Amino acid sequence: MRTVVQKFGGSSIADTELIKNVARRIVKTKDEGAGVVAVVSAMGDTTDELLDMARSVAARPERREIDMLLTTGEQISIALLAMAIGELGRPAVSLTGLQAGIVTDNAHTKARIMKIDTQRVRRELDQDKIVVVAGFQGITESGEIATLGRGGSDTTAVALAAALKADLCEINTDVDGVFTADPRVIPQAEKISYISYDEMLELASLGSLVLQPRAVEFAKNYKVPLLIRSSFNECEGTLVGEVASVENCRPVSGVAHDLNVAKIAIFDVRDCPGVAGKIFHALADEKINVDMIIQGWSRDDRNDIVFTVARVDLESALRVVDGIVKDIGASGFVYNDRVAKVSIVGAGMITNPGVAADMFRALAKEGINIEMISTSEIKVSCVVEEEQAIKAVGALHAEFFGHQA
Amino acid sequence: MRTVVQKFGGSSIADTELIKNVARRIVKTKDEGAGVVAVVSAMGDTTDELLDMARSVAARPERREIDMLLTTGEQISIALLAMAIGELGRPAVSLTGLQAGIVTDNAHTKARIMKIDTQRVRRELDQDKIVVVAGFQGITESGEIATLGRGGSDTTAVALAAALKADLCEINTDVDGVFTADPRVIPQAEKISYISYDEMLELASLGSLVLQPRAVEFAKNYKVPLLIRSSFNECEGTLVGEVASVENCRPVSGVAHDLNVAKIAIFDVRDCPGVAGKIFHALADEKINVDMIIQGWSRDDRNDIVFTVARVDLESALRVVDGIVKDIGASGFVYNDRVAKVSIVGAGMITNPGVAADMFRALAKEGINIEMISTSEIKVSCVVEEEQAIKAVGALHAEFFGHQA
Repeated sequence: MRTVVQKFGGSSIADTELIKNVARRIVKTKDEGAGVVAVVSAMGDTTDELLDMARSVAARPERREIDMLLTTGEQISIALLAMAIGELGRPAVSLTGLQAGIVTDNAHTKARIMKIDTQRVRRELDQDKIVVVAGFQGITESGEIATLGRGGSDTTAVALAAALKADLCEINTDVDGVFTADPRVIPQAEKISYISYDEMLELASLGSLVLQPRAVEFAKNYKVPLLIRSSFNECEGTLVGEVASVENCRPVSGVAHDLNVAKIAIFDVRDCPGVAGKIFHALADEKINVDMIIQGWSRDDRNDIVFTVARVDLESALRVVDGIVKDIGASGFVYNDRVAKVSIVGAGMITNPGVAADMFRALAKEGINIEMISTSEIKVSCVVEEEQAIKAVGALHAEFFGHQA
Repeated sequence: MRTVVQKFGGSSIADTELIKNVARRIVKTKDEGAGVVAVVSAMGDTTDELLDMARSVAARPERREIDMLLTTGEQISIALLAMAIGELGRPAVSLTGLQAGIVTDNAHTKARIMKIDTQRVRRELDQDKIVVVAGFQGITESGEIATLGRGGSDTTAVALAAALKADLCEINTDVDGVFTADPRVIPQAEKISYISYDEMLELASLGSLVLQPRAVEFAKNYKVPLLIRSSFNECEGTLVGEVASVENCRPVSGVAHDLNVAKIAIFDVRDCPGVAGKIFHALADEKINVDMIIQGWSRDDRNDIVFTVARVDLESALRVVDGIVKDIGASGFVYNDRVAKVSIVGAGMITNPGVAADMFRALAKEGINIEMISTSEIKVSCVVEEEQAIKAVGALHAEFFGHQA
C-alpha cells in the first residue's frame, strides 16, 4: 500500500475548527487508498505562550525542563486531531515522540534524531489506523524528553517518511508552495512546480522560511519526495525531488532574501596558519552559526576577515571577537547590523557561466552596492545594505523572470 | 533522611505567582532537612479547558485520546514548578508518570495504580534533588498513557509515599484541614486536629470533598501518615493516622452532607433468591455506583427495594431499571432526585450505643423527616429532603458539638 506522511504546522491547526479541517484532509488522503501518518506541531502560538510562562517563573530555566514544558504543545495537538479523525468514523491513534520510537541525542531544546524504531507506527498502519505523531519531539536513550528546536516538526515528518520508506512526505503549510521570490515582497512571483533538493536546500537556508534546512537535508540524503502545499486550499504545491527538472530551462529557480543578517570585520589579522580556525572555533564554541566568510588578499602578512552571523547572535559574536582580537594580533573590529543578504538559486547555473555577472549588473543598474559576495555551485549570495534589499530582490526577479517589481 | 511527599492541587498552582509560592514552600521543607517529592495537578481550570476543546472536535472522544490530552496539564505544572524551584537555587527535576515509574491498569480515564517502580525517584533523591512528579497519570504495561480519574493526584501522592516508605504525605489544598462540618454551611465548625483513616474514609466518601476516598484507602492500607493542610497559610492542618485519637473523647468526629443524591424505589419485587443480585449487577454493568440499599419486610412474597445513586447517574440508572422491571416481576418504579444525605461519622460510636438515637431525635425536633437510614460501625447516614439538608446539618452539629447553627 502507498504510504504518505502529512505534516501540518501550527498555523494549520491553530484552533479546533482548523483541526477538524485538517482531519477531513487526512481522511480524504486515506480514502484515496493511502496509509497515512500525520505529523503535527503545537497549535498556533502555544509554544510561545508556554515559553512566556516559563520566563515568568524562572530567568534561566533548565533546558531539560523547557523540553518537558514545550512537548505538551504537540501532545495536545495529536490527541485532538486523533479525536477529530475518529469523529469522522476512521480509526486513529495518537503517538508521542517516545511512542513513535523517535530517539534523539541529549542536546535538549535542539536535539537531533539518532534513529527511529518504526515498529509501533507500522503495527498501527497494518491495523488500518491513521497514525498521528507529535512533531518536534523525541526521547533520549536515557528516557528524557527532548525537542528538536524550532521547526523541528518538518524534520520529524521527513525522518519518519525516510524510516517508513514512504512514497511521499507532504509539508502542509500556510503558503501555496515555493515561489520564485517571496510573494509578500514580489507580487509577480510565480509558484515553482518542481525544484531539486539542492536548490530547496539553498532556498531553505537563505531565509525563505517555507521549510527547515535540516528537513530538506534529511529528504535529500534519504531521497524522500517532498510536496510543499497549502493546508487551506487544493492548489498543487511544489514538488521537491532528486534531479533538476528537465522542463525548467531557466538557469535561476528563485530569488531569496534574508534580513536577519549582521556583518563583522576584523582588521589586520596575522596571516599565518591556524588564525582563522581560532576565530571560528571560538564562535562555534558559543554555538554561533557563521554564514558567509570573506578573507581578502594578504598585504604585509596581514589580512582583513569579514563574516556574517544572524542578527540575534551579533551580541555574543562581538563578545567572542573582543575576547580573541589581541590573541590573533588584529588591530580592531567593526560591525554593521543594517545589512541583508539577497541570493539567486538555480541548478541551471552550473551550465550557465554568465549568471553571476548578470546578477551583479542587474544590481549595479539599480545603484545597489554589493558589500560581500559568496557563491556555491547553485547559488550566488550578495550582502547589501538592508534598506536596498527589497529593491535588489525586485531587480533580480525582473532580470531572471522578466517581471518588473 | 526523612522523606516527605507534598501534594499540591490545581487551585494551589493556578497561576505562575502561585507556582512560585509553592516552590518556596517546598524549598522550606527541603531546607528543614527532608528529602522532598512534590506531586502536582494541572494548573487551575486547565483540565476543564482541555475537555472543552475535546468536546468541540468530537462528540464522543476515545478514552485513550482523552488521557493523551489531559496528561499534558500535569506535565506543564511539573516543568514550571521544577523551573521555579531551580530559580530558588535548589536542584529539581520533573518526572512524568512514566518517568516516575507509575504503572497502571488499562482502564483509560479511571485507571488504577498497579505498582510503582521507585528506582528513578530514589536516584534523584539520592542526588539531593527535589523531585516533582506529575499527579493523576501513569503508564500501562503496553506503554499507553492513562489517567487515574478526577482527584487522582491525591492517589498518586499517597501511593508514592507508600512506595517510598515516606515519613509523611502532605495534602496541600485550599482548605485549612478537615472540619466537624462544611465550614461554608456551618460557620461554627471546628478544625479537627487528628482523625483516623476509617473516619476520614467515611467523610471522604460522604461528600466532604477534601480528599479522594481511594487515596485514603491507600493510605490506610499502607499506613501512610497524611497531613491535610492549606497551601496558602501556615495553619497546622489535620493529621490522619491509624488509631482514633485518645484525646478525642467525642463519639462523633464530624457531620457530612451530600446533595448529589437521587433515590429510586422498585415496587413489589418478587421475593426469591437472586432478584436483588440481578438488579445491582445490571447497574454495575453500566458502571453505576449504588450507595444505600434498603429492602423492606416481605409481604405476600413481594418486596419494595429502594436505593440511592449519584444524581449524574440517575438517567442511566432509570434506563437499567426500566429494562429489568418486567423480568423481576415488579409492579413499577419511581424516583426522587430532590433528596440529600446527611451523616455523622465517629470511631467513638462503637462504644456509644445511643448516638444513632440522638441523631434521629435531633432531626425530629427540627421536623425533618428521615426517608432512608443506613449505618456502619462508625457512621450513620440519613436521606432527607434536599431542602431540609442544611437545616439537618445545623441540627446535628448543634447536637454533637454544642454550637447552634
